Amino acid sequence: MTKIKVAINGFGTIGKRVAEAIQLMPDMELIGVVKTRPDYLARMIVRNGLKLYVPEDKLNTFKETGIEPHGVLQDLLREAEVVVDATPGGVGAKYKEIYEKYGIKVIFQGGEKPFVAKKSFSSLCNLEECIGSESLRVVSCNTTALLRLICTLNKYFKIKKVRATIIRRAADPKEDKRGPVDSIKLNPAEIPSHHAEDVKTVLPWLDILTTAFIVPTTLMHVHSVYIVFENNVDRKDIIESLRSTKRILLLDTESTGIDSTAKIIEAARDLGRKRHDIPELVIWKNTIYAHENELWLVQAVHQESIVVPENIDAIRAIVSSPNVHKTIELTDEILGLGKFI
Amino acid sequence: MTKIKVAINGFGTIGKRVAEAIQLMPDMELIGVVKTRPDYLARMIVRNGLKLYVPEDKLNTFKETGIEPHGVLQDLLREAEVVVDATPGGVGAKYKEIYEKYGIKVIFQGGEKPFVAKKSFSSLCNLEECIGSESLRVVSCNTTALLRLICTLNKYFKIKKVRATIIRRAADPKEDKRGPVDSIKLNPAEIPSHHAEDVKTVLPWLDILTTAFIVPTTLMHVHSVYIVFENNVDRKDIIESLRSTKRILLLDTESTGIDSTAKIIEAARDLGRKRHDIPELVIWKNTIYAHENELWLVQAVHQESIVVPENIDAIRAIVSSPNVHKTIELTDEILGLGKFI
Repeated sequence: MTKIKVAINGFGTIGKRVAEAIQLMPDMELIGVVKTRPDYLARMIVRNGLKLYVPEDKLNTFKETGIEPHGVLQDLLREAEVVVDATPGGVGAKYKEIYEKYGIKVIFQGGEKPFVAKKSFSSLCNLEECIGSESLRVVSCNTTALLRLICTLNKYFKIKKVRATIIRRAADPKEDKRGPVDSIKLNPAEIPSHHAEDVKTVLPWLDILTTAFIVPTTLMHVHSVYIVFENNVDRKDIIESLRSTKRILLLDTESTGIDSTAKIIEAARDLGRKRHDIPELVIWKNTIYAHENELWLVQAVHQESIVVPENIDAIRAIVSSPNVHKTIELTDEILGLGKFI
Repeated sequence: MTKIKVAINGFGTIGKRVAEAIQLMPDMELIGVVKTRPDYLARMIVRNGLKLYVPEDKLNTFKETGIEPHGVLQDLLREAEVVVDATPGGVGAKYKEIYEKYGIKVIFQGGEKPFVAKKSFSSLCNLEECIGSESLRVVSCNTTALLRLICTLNKYFKIKKVRATIIRRAADPKEDKRGPVDSIKLNPAEIPSHHAEDVKTVLPWLDILTTAFIVPTTLMHVHSVYIVFENNVDRKDIIESLRSTKRILLLDTESTGIDSTAKIIEAARDLGRKRHDIPELVIWKNTIYAHENELWLVQAVHQESIVVPENIDAIRAIVSSPNVHKTIELTDEILGLGKFI
């Protein structure tokens, strides 16, 4: 089997995780990683036997710190079939021109504006439509979470409207410059927040409104999701439908004692999951309230890792013509999704 | 004018604030405060010229630390017309028997179970019904906030249902033993939370569901409130109705720059408000979303002080027969409510 030759530009929160996931995939080859700063992660790339590429004007900076890059960005783009742009939010758009110049397929992240790519991508919603696209944008962590829930439910029940309150973590664990430390901040100070619009880049027909807050925690986002269906729904059927995908973990509070994001993360640590990552969307089963045509539930989103499986699926969709069900199954299997406590 | 003789049992977060409010009222006399521990607040009671009463078995403890109480609890209950029970949540129920023995009217706080008192109380909802009751329970800070909003709107528009997400502060500023420090905790891990039931102790006819989370902040709670009306509503009319009471502050983010609880509190400090208290319910005007029969808005609740005006109104309702509009107006005027930035 010929492997898909993948390059990654950026080795931050998303880039390093997607890199590791690609290395695990039997049908992919990570042929190089681009970094702009010679920090500990650059050394780790080299130590792990990966090929490090840098922008031409940074060659000397790297050499001065004793790191010998394998080549420059352009060398890598010439060789790869697809590049996963995992540069900081907004920076991907600046690379767009050079990607186009080299005629390489690109997967951008949700931190970019929607129009940076031909299509916004969410595995459980529109993988099929995205096959063969020139560029894709894997939507952000919050949007990925909402879409996983909505598209899973919408396969079984017709959704009338979604009204979701998003409680965002203030900073990732490694970020020591961000806040707030003691505040609840409107994000933004109006309704709807941009998350509703972002969901609509994938599901333009959906009546969705969101409001969002930032609170002083680093571990996970939490969503309070209220959905109205066209017809009455049954709690058991809802639970059954949510069990249909490994991308969703149904967590029973009573049998696990897990009633907070801190406890979810502690369980991931106890399971030996690397970096305590939880790429699955976690839904607290006990919170599922269904009455007549209303559904209300609470879900937790691990902002650092939830988009990793979607990036893997996007790589396959953009360069080959995979079977939707099989590619998702392969990704889940190799990443070990769905195996929790 | 004969003044209402009020006693306060407990001088914590609520008690000390209600005490100060009573001292400001022209129709009330604070004839004594009960405390069980000889800490700095006990000294402050004496220094402020208030009469300190203690449980009989604590007399010596106080005397040993150099504080000379004016008498024991029973002395005070014999003299007062009404006691505001501001003891810690659940402790009020234990005093119930002695209050009844002395035939004194009682105002309990929201930390007690609903059945501790004859009626649950909320000024803008059911003051008239509570006149002359033997005992009242001023509902908790979150419930007071929801009821202020709901009863103000319901005067003008018929509410069909309320679905509110409550984001709670983890601890009050003085509490140094509580958390979480880095987590979002379900409170409880099911829908609805008890807040919906508590609202129904005042409005039994209301279709309301709530979900609640605890987040690591000390300053204020925040509510994301979604309301469906029987008929279509207009944003301007909603805003006009919310302006009808001084118990609600409409905050314009664009002209003030205030988009977080930390900034609300900073403004209260800049205004020289004692302890940066904000007894008003704060509604961010920019968040008010109205479309067809739906309303969505975000409000902030200063948990330490929001129930103070309701306690004052409850004192009048329980011992006299006040005009609803006039007593609320008097409370608001004396406490300086509605004057913000």
